[in-house]
Amino acid sequence: MEAELKRMLSDLQILKSSLPDPSHQASIDQIRSRLENLPSLAMAEPTRRSKVKDMSAEVVDSNPYSRLMALQRMGIVENYESIREFSVAIVGIGGVGSVAAEMLTRCGIGRLLLYDYDTVELANMNRLFFRPEQVGMTKTDAAVQTLSEINPDVVLESFTLNITTVQGFETFISSLTNKSYNKKKEGTGVDLVLSCVDNYEARMVVNQACNELNQTWMESGVSEDAVSGHIQLLIPGETACFACAPPLVVASGVDERTLKREGVCAASLPTTMGVVAGLLVQNTLKFLLKFGQVSPYLGYNALKDYFPTMTMKPNPQCSNGPCIERQKEYMLIKPARDAAAKAKMEEELSAIEIPIHDDNEWNISVVDDCEVDAINAQSSDALPEGLVHELPKADVYKDPVVSNEADDTTDDLEDLKRQLEALNAN
Amino acid sequence: MEAELKRMLSDLQILKSSLPDPSHQASIDQIRSRLENLPSLAMAEPTRRSKVKDMSAEVVDSNPYSRLMALQRMGIVENYESIREFSVAIVGIGGVGSVAAEMLTRCGIGRLLLYDYDTVELANMNRLFFRPEQVGMTKTDAAVQTLSEINPDVVLESFTLNITTVQGFETFISSLTNKSYNKKKEGTGVDLVLSCVDNYEARMVVNQACNELNQTWMESGVSEDAVSGHIQLLIPGETACFACAPPLVVASGVDERTLKREGVCAASLPTTMGVVAGLLVQNTLKFLLKFGQVSPYLGYNALKDYFPTMTMKPNPQCSNGPCIERQKEYMLIKPARDAAAKAKMEEELSAIEIPIHDDNEWNISVVDDCEVDAINAQSSDALPEGLVHELPKADVYKDPVVSNEADDTTDDLEDLKRQLEALNAN
Repeated sequence: MEAELKRMLSDLQILKSSLPDPSHQASIDQIRSRLENLPSLAMAEPTRRSKVKDMSAEVVDSNPYSRLMALQRMGIVENYESIREFSVAIVGIGGVGSVAAEMLTRCGIGRLLLYDYDTVELANMNRLFFRPEQVGMTKTDAAVQTLSEINPDVVLESFTLNITTVQGFETFISSLTNKSYNKKKEGTGVDLVLSCVDNYEARMVVNQACNELNQTWMESGVSEDAVSGHIQLLIPGETACFACAPPLVVASGVDERTLKREGVCAASLPTTMGVVAGLLVQNTLKFLLKFGQVSPYLGYNALKDYFPTMTMKPNPQCSNGPCIERQKEYMLIKPARDAAAKAKMEEELSAIEIPIHDDNEWNISVVDDCEVDAINAQSSDALPEGLVHELPKADVYKDPVVSNEADDTTDDLEDLKRQLEALNAN
Repeated sequence: MEAELKRMLSDLQILKSSLPDPSHQASIDQIRSRLENLPSLAMAEPTRRSKVKDMSAEVVDSNPYSRLMALQRMGIVENYESIREFSVAIVGIGGVGSVAAEMLTRCGIGRLLLYDYDTVELANMNRLFFRPEQVGMTKTDAAVQTLSEINPDVVLESFTLNITTVQGFETFISSLTNKSYNKKKEGTGVDLVLSCVDNYEARMVVNQACNELNQTWMESGVSEDAVSGHIQLLIPGETACFACAPPLVVASGVDERTLKREGVCAASLPTTMGVVAGLLVQNTLKFLLKFGQVSPYLGYNALKDYFPTMTMKPNPQCSNGPCIERQKEYMLIKPARDAAAKAKMEEELSAIEIPIHDDNEWNISVVDDCEVDAINAQSSDALPEGLVHELPKADVYKDPVVSNEADDTTDDLEDLKRQLEALNAN
C-alpha cells in the first residue's frame, strides 16, 4: 500500500502542475495532504470494541464478560467483578509472560504492569502471542498493542527496562510501590508479582525486590529441554524465598550465561509454555478471587504428564537479609493469625445445622471431617440442577505430599468419645 | 479510514466536474479508482514472513524453527522436521480447538483441517486466540486469517460445516479420507483427529467417524463450571471408544440442549482452556514425533491442581457396531504385535553393555529395573553438559493408578536368584 500511495501522490503532483486554475491546484494539494494522512488514520482506528463500564452477567453474544460472570452463578467465585480492583506485575514478556498477560487481559484484570527489555524476533514464533509482523518491536510495545486491542478496559503500563541493572531495579521498585491506581490498597501498589523470566539472575532480583517490599509473588519456569516446568508461590517470611532453597532448575556448576552463547539455544514449545502460563494464571485467579486452593509448588513433567507438588518452609539460615527480617515478622504475627483462623473455623462449624436424633435428650451431635471439608470447599460444590462435576473430587484420593495437621488427631479422638457417649446414651 | 475515503472520493468527483479539460477529468477518474483500491491493497499485504523450504536448526534470530529443532540437539525428539509430513484434523475451533490449532501452527505442522460452523462473538473474548476485530467472521475464516499470518508454511484447509448434519458428516468423512497431501500414508488422509467440541452429540459423531475409518483420535473437554477438563486418547478396538463407557462429563438426566437455552450460559476461563489445549497438543506431539509417553486419559481439576489418570479398555458389549468390528480386528493382530514388542525390547536389552566384574568366571550379570527404565525413557535423559533435569523423574514416585505388569514380579524373583548366586560365587 505504501508504494502505491507514493505513486499516487506523485501523479497528483504532476496533474496539479498541468492545471491552469490556482483554485484547482489548491484542491489537489488538499487531496494530497489527506492522502498522506490515510495510513495513520488506518493505524489509529482498528475495529476496536468500546470500553465497558460495569461487568455484566447478561447472556448476549455482544457481552465480553458473560462467560466470566457465569463463574458467580456456577458458585465458583463470589464476586468476579472485584478482579477490576487488582494490579498484577509481570516480569518477562516471553513465552510464559506474554501468554499470562493475554489470559489476565481477557479475564478483565484491572491493571497490568509489564517489564521486559527484549525485542520480538522470528525465533520467538514457536511460542504463542507474538506475530511475525511485530518482529523488531520491543516485546513491551508489541504486547501493549495486542492487549489493548483485545481488551481496552485493562490499564496497561509497560516498562522497557532490564531489572538486573541498578537503574532498572530502582524503576522496578518505584513502579511496584506506586499506589495511584488503588489508593485504598494496603502494602505495595500491586497485588501480585509474576516472575516469567528465563534466568537465575533475574529471579534473584525479583526475589530481592519482593522480600524488601514484603510482596507476595509467583515464580514460573520452563526447562532448557522444553519438556518440564513449574510454578511456585512465594510469601515473604511464610514460605521459602528463592534464596532459601537452592533452585532445582539452575545449571549445575557452570555459569548460566555460557548456556546462551552464540550458536547455542534452548529448546522451547508453545505447549509447555502454554500449560505453565495457564497453571500460573489459574493460581493467580484463585489467589486474587479467593476460590479453590492455591498451589505452593506445582511441577509439570511433559514426557509423563506428571505433576509433582510440595511445600517449602523458609530457611532460618537464608543468605538474604530481608528474608530473615520477614521471617521474624511472620513468627510474631503467626500465633494471632492461627487463633483467628481457628476461631473462624469454629464459628463456621457451629453455624452448620446438623440433624439431631429425635430422642436425643443430651443434645449430642457428631461432627465429622466431611463437614469440615464442605466448608473448605466453600460453595464450589453447588452446581445448577442437572450438572455434575466432571472429575471426582481430589479429596477422594490420598494426597501423598501434604501431611495432615496434628489437630485432626484430636478431632478424631473427640469424635470417637462423642460417638461412644451417644451409643451409651441409647 | 473508510469514512474519510468516501469523502475524498466525493470531493474528487466535485473537483472533476469543475475541470474543463477532459484529459484532466480522466486523470481524476484514474486517481479515484486507485483510491478505491487502496483498502484491499492494505488487507492483502500484511507484513508476512516468507515461506521456509527446509526447517533449519541454525541459531539466528530470523529462524522461526531454531527453538523447535533444538529439541533434537537436546535429545528429546529424533527427527523434528518429520512434523511437516503430518496432517491433523481439529473439530471445533472454540476455546480449546483454536488454541490447539495455533500451537500446532507455531510448531510447523504439515497440514491442519479445521471444522466449525459458528461465528466469532464478543462473548468469545474471554478465551485466547480470536480478536475483537474478527467478530462476525466464521471461526474457520478467522482462524485461517490468523494462522496463515503466523506461519505460512502450514497447509490450512477449513470446513465451515456442522458435522452432526447428514451433509456435514459426509463432507467430514470424505475430507478425512482425502490422501492428496501425503499419498504414501497408510490408513486415512490424516494422522490424528482432535475433538474440541462442546457437546455430547458432536463427540458421538466424531466417535462414529473414527470407528468407521479406524482412525486414532483424541477427545478433549472442559466442564460447564470452567474449573475442570480432560483429554483422552481413543484407538478404535484397542481403547474404550466414546460409546463404550458412559462419559463422566455429560449432564445427568437432562437433555443437554436445554443447558444452552437463551439467557443461560456456561462459564469459561482462558486458563483452563489454555491448559487443556496445551496438554492435548503436547500429547499430539508425543504421539506424532514418538517421544515420552502418550497419556490414555488425563484430567485437570483446577481448584486443587489435581491431575487424575486412568486407562479404559473397550467394552465388548459396546452399542457402536464399528467399535465391535475394530475390537475383533484388534484381538486378531494383538498376539503378533505383543510378540514383536517383546522381541524389540529383548533386542534393546541385549544391546546394552553391562559392566561385568573382573573375576566373574560364571559371566553372571544383574539386570535391574533401572536399566529397563533407561530404555523406556529413550534418549531423553541425554542432556548437554552442564544441564540438569528440572524435575525428578516420575519413576522416582509410586504411580498410584497404573498397576505393575505381572512380569515385574517374575523379573524381581529372577533378580534375587541371580544376586543370591552372585553372592554365593564370591
